[in-house]
Amino acid sequence: MFAAIIDEVRRKNPLVHCITNYVTVNDCANVLLACGASPVMADDGGEVEDIVSIASALVINIGTLNSRTIPAMFKAGKRANQIGIPVILDPVGAGASSLRTSTANDLIREIKLAVIRGNISEIFSIAGDSGSTRGVDASDPDIQKGESSDRTISVLKELNKRTGAVITVTGPKDIVVGNDEVYLVSNGHPLMSKVSGTGCMLSVLTGACCAVSPSRPAAATAAAALMGIAGESAYERLLLTGGGTLTYRTFIVDEVSNMNGEKFSEAAKIESR
Amino acid sequence: MFAAIIDEVRRKNPLVHCITNYVTVNDCANVLLACGASPVMADDGGEVEDIVSIASALVINIGTLNSRTIPAMFKAGKRANQIGIPVILDPVGAGASSLRTSTANDLIREIKLAVIRGNISEIFSIAGDSGSTRGVDASDPDIQKGESSDRTISVLKELNKRTGAVITVTGPKDIVVGNDEVYLVSNGHPLMSKVSGTGCMLSVLTGACCAVSPSRPAAATAAAALMGIAGESAYERLLLTGGGTLTYRTFIVDEVSNMNGEKFSEAAKIESR
Amino acid sequence: MFAAIIDEVRRKNPLVHCITNYVTVNDCANVLLACGASPVMADDGGEVEDIVSIASALVINIGTLNSRTIPAMFKAGKRANQIGIPVILDPVGAGASSLRTSTANDLIREIKLAVIRGNISEIFSIAGDSGSTRGVDASDPDIQKGESSDRTISVLKELNKRTGAVITVTGPKDIVVGNDEVYLVSNGHPLMSKVSGTGCMLSVLTGACCAVSPSRPAAATAAAALMGIAGESAYERLLLTGGGTLTYRTFIVDEVSNMNGEKFSEAAKIESR
Repeated sequence: MFAAIIDEVRRKNPLVHCITNYVTVNDCANVLLACGASPVMADDGGEVEDIVSIASALVINIGTLNSRTIPAMFKAGKRANQIGIPVILDPVGAGASSLRTSTANDLIREIKLAVIRGNISEIFSIAGDSGSTRGVDASDPDIQKGESSDRTISVLKELNKRTGAVITVTGPKDIVVGNDEVYLVSNGHPLMSKVSGTGCMLSVLTGACCAVSPSRPAAATAAAALMGIAGESAYERLLLTGGGTLTYRTFIVDEVSNMNGEKFSEAAKIESR
Repeated sequence: MFAAIIDEVRRKNPLVHCITNYVTVNDCANVLLACGASPVMADDGGEVEDIVSIASALVINIGTLNSRTIPAMFKAGKRANQIGIPVILDPVGAGASSLRTSTANDLIREIKLAVIRGNISEIFSIAGDSGSTRGVDASDPDIQKGESSDRTISVLKELNKRTGAVITVTGPKDIVVGNDEVYLVSNGHPLMSKVSGTGCMLSVLTGACCAVSPSRPAAATAAAALMGIAGESAYERLLLTGGGTLTYRTFIVDEVSNMNGEKFSEAAKIESR
Repeated sequence: MFAAIIDEVRRKNPLVHCITNYVTVNDCANVLLACGASPVMADDGGEVEDIVSIASALVINIGTLNSRTIPAMFKAGKRANQIGIPVILDPVGAGASSLRTSTANDLIREIKLAVIRGNISEIFSIAGDSGSTRGVDASDPDIQKGESSDRTISVLKELNKRTGAVITVTGPKDIVVGNDEVYLVSNGHPLMSKVSGTGCMLSVLTGACCAVSPSRPAAATAAAALMGIAGESAYERLLLTGGGTLTYRTFIVDEVSNMNGEKFSEAAKIESR
């Protein structure tokens, strides 16, 4: 199921429209090309509806949101909802400024999202808005141990219920919650956290997978495993060549570009809960 | 002739002012340094005229155009025309949104351009505006075979006549049309299309070459061959080291940085039509 | 003293808020992660005060300043002054447009800066504003020889006195002037000037070092040596692998990611004047 999605992306070459931050936008473009999709970056209110109309998925990343791009995010999201393409939200830094937290929450309220993908702090800062759980961040001892506590999963389930979106939380184990399904993905490597953009790249890969698969939990899980496997293989290659974190970044995208369903199947560590 | 331009860029170190997208801007800066030029990126209406005034070429790339940068493109272009430095237009995504198509066409009308550089879809969407040929894109069977049909060349000639700009169309074979001259460049590698920014990089290299050469068709052709040769040598190196698309991107810029007129001459596959 | 700062950054993992250009922002994010700090990029007036409030240093880089981000730079700087975190200014291109020169000078007047880091042209164009020395740029013969003329140092001392900021000038030898201390750093490699972003990266490393060290001259010097050592080791590695300027960029960040106080001590070439 998951591996088929990886092959399907390469076969269908979906166009993924990204409204994203200027820090990791180049990584996002390259990883989309690497997985077999095509990127289009456009963030001006004057054209986002046109661009959404030719795309197969929309990814909204609030990493460097600003007064000009925020309205464009809503415009694009609404158009995407109208034409029925999946919208992925990456609430980068939600919790770090009230502009980010409120923009993320407004997007969640006004746009029907297919997937929300963030780290534990970002997701809890959004979930906390519902009054359920606040102030829990990546220092949650359960998270640090790489365990996925029942408490965490129950918060994600609640957020999934409230928003209708599949929730992907990345960490030592990635957790994907949606439609009464829970997947845990154990692929990945700790060094990925020392490379800027691995989260953003996963969000656009999630867009690519959702573009070709009607099952969003499966698509989000396939994307998380793809990114994690790439991180693992890239680390193995790094051990052979030597180098540091920027070589590692290069190798991660390389591995995505060399991935196929078969390799994916052999390496994916996905468990259903 | 072409090789001399490559050496001349390194000798003269021209300053190339880019108003460009935030996706591939870093690649553009690095490839300009790699070829021996110097980049300056500036897109605010409050300073573009100052910056143009110290530059030897202006490259306008509409890849992530917005309401703030569009007026700056016109301001910069007009100033460049006044002081007589070449202006290169890369109409990224023309045809994909009406904002892009109309901005490209307005720039063509209001700014005297030295070169327009795009892929076949972008160039035809501009050319189509004149009523000649519409709806032809990269799926044109002739283009896919790597052939340059007479029909394509005649559209480019018409666009060249209408705009006065040399037209560079990149594809399996790059076509450069200007001043009754037609050049076909067969350098390059298909994997280049899997790296974000190869088109943008060619556009700024075209700016660097035009900055040092009075013959724009020759300069545009030299730039296309330079980029193509870099893509070929980088691919050979990739076969030796292994890796994927992001290693390939690194190697492409590397090869530009190690290029000189002599290497260029040996590898260039340029035919005059 | 200097080596301890390098280790301290990795131990304390300071959050460094960057308002920076979109050309090299990704390099800045990755080099901050590489040295052990954490980056946060945010440039909208609606959130910079929130972001500054959780950061340990603020780096303002005017490389692609615009009408939207300039007010945010002032807002962020003033908030940083209020809460007492160090502010680093990188006056990219000061002297190249009046917008850049005046913005840099206004920032210097209105914000209390910990460090100003630029190349000789940029620093002299700011210093020149005080009427002391104008029109001296990187073609100053003393600079080209790699010597640090008494005249240069006296200009820097004057700028330090006027602004209260430590002044770091990068070149064949980096010069750090502050609090009656003058340090010369001889690390580095000429090829660094062919890589976009080495100056910007040094500025954010300066931010990271200032975030953990009360002595700003020492912090600025440690950062300059760190960047220079990385450039040297990366060049040695480049000789082994082959490649060009973009491989070199990758290796520079790699070397920062593999640095520690001990390696730093062995390689640092710092003299006190």
